[in-house]
Amino acid sequence: MSTTLPPSLSDLRALVFDVFGTVVDWRGSLIEEGRALGRRLGVTLDWAQLADDWRAGYQPAMAEVRSGRRPWAHIDTLHREILDRLLAARGQHWPEHEVAAFNLAWHRLQPWPDSRAGLLRLKARWPVATLSNGNVSLLVDMARHAGLPWDAVFSAELFGHYKPDPETYLGAARLLGVQPQQLMLVAAHPSDLRGAAACGLRTAHVARPLEHGEGGWREPWTPGEFDVETDSFTALAHALGA
Amino acid sequence: MSTTLPPSLSDLRALVFDVFGTVVDWRGSLIEEGRALGRRLGVTLDWAQLADDWRAGYQPAMAEVRSGRRPWAHIDTLHREILDRLLAARGQHWPEHEVAAFNLAWHRLQPWPDSRAGLLRLKARWPVATLSNGNVSLLVDMARHAGLPWDAVFSAELFGHYKPDPETYLGAARLLGVQPQQLMLVAAHPSDLRGAAACGLRTAHVARPLEHGEGGWREPWTPGEFDVETDSFTALAHALGA
Repeated sequence: MSTTLPPSLSDLRALVFDVFGTVVDWRGSLIEEGRALGRRLGVTLDWAQLADDWRAGYQPAMAEVRSGRRPWAHIDTLHREILDRLLAARGQHWPEHEVAAFNLAWHRLQPWPDSRAGLLRLKARWPVATLSNGNVSLLVDMARHAGLPWDAVFSAELFGHYKPDPETYLGAARLLGVQPQQLMLVAAHPSDLRGAAACGLRTAHVARPLEHGEGGWREPWTPGEFDVETDSFTALAHALGA
Repeated sequence: MSTTLPPSLSDLRALVFDVFGTVVDWRGSLIEEGRALGRRLGVTLDWAQLADDWRAGYQPAMAEVRSGRRPWAHIDTLHREILDRLLAARGQHWPEHEVAAFNLAWHRLQPWPDSRAGLLRLKARWPVATLSNGNVSLLVDMARHAGLPWDAVFSAELFGHYKPDPETYLGAARLLGVQPQQLMLVAAHPSDLRGAAACGLRTAHVARPLEHGEGGWREPWTPGEFDVETDSFTALAHALGA
């Protein structure tokens, strides 16, 4: 069966992907790593709350960098600063090597069940690359751990700007040698997609309703806002005819 | 069988690879593309000489950028300028789309016979990435065309500097989150390896005696200069115990 692309997408040349929440389940993965660590250290914590608080510290930390109030710092550094505060607030004093290793849990996040299969289908037709606020070494480790078949790993780190700054979307198009309208951002987050659309990129919204857990927060958006709106990478591949 | 790493290499964390000549046979690939084009256009040229002249124009073109005499320009642009001169000198006036397509022959270079198998073995143990003067889109196209399993595609383009400027070697180490001495450059070219060694990287020389054709030029070097000296990627994997 052959599927015809919507006319607006017929010039598509490459796809870039948000990663945290879109490709991988950061919350479930952090909870699982936390529980294993807790059993090993004999520590009892609300790991789901820790995961949520850790992630919640991320936007304000990046905002410091985006505003220019703070020089460039990458996500491993920001994650570690947030984690240190969260552990101190909980009266937790772990050995340094355990804190350092837990901070790298973000390098070992697990993909959603459809991510790998969908990426392989899409990759057979177009280049697929990350476009993440995560640093390059984090994304490389994650891809090796989770078997994600990226053609290239693009990170905010390469541009010295975090999404949704336009330098990130336009930088990815430039590195891929394509026009913005020939590039599609795939993301679970409407704010990210709006940043890409403002730069002329095509957009695919992939709903990840469990990103913040059962009944958790979901960023609002309006159906019809994005070029493609779907709920898995395999469904996206189907919609694009890949 | 298990192989023990030389002690100086026991801290190895990642490998980066020169590409043109080291991973792929640019000369043989260009000759083959040229001959096919010649049959199609009814053009008779010395394609080996054209390939050699094209490649010979590359170092002077990069030197203009490296010296600061010219602002950043990427390899697709430099290759096209050189090709235009070479075709004009030969009285060749091809349709624009044919020249543009032939310029992209560099995106479709064929790997040496051992490249892919060796990379897969090395990748099973360490991250493997390009560190090439080729632009990112060229390297992405090449990897997709030739099935090269890179974990990341690093290019001079990311650093705004061409090898052997130190920004390239140190930039790759920074992006991979490793110290220079934990990173190895694999290259067929002694000058590139010397640039890396001056930045503290480990070095692996892989001889590619046919890079410039049978009996062609070979850049001189002294046995014992580099940490590992071998003649294929599979032999390199064996030497490193991968």
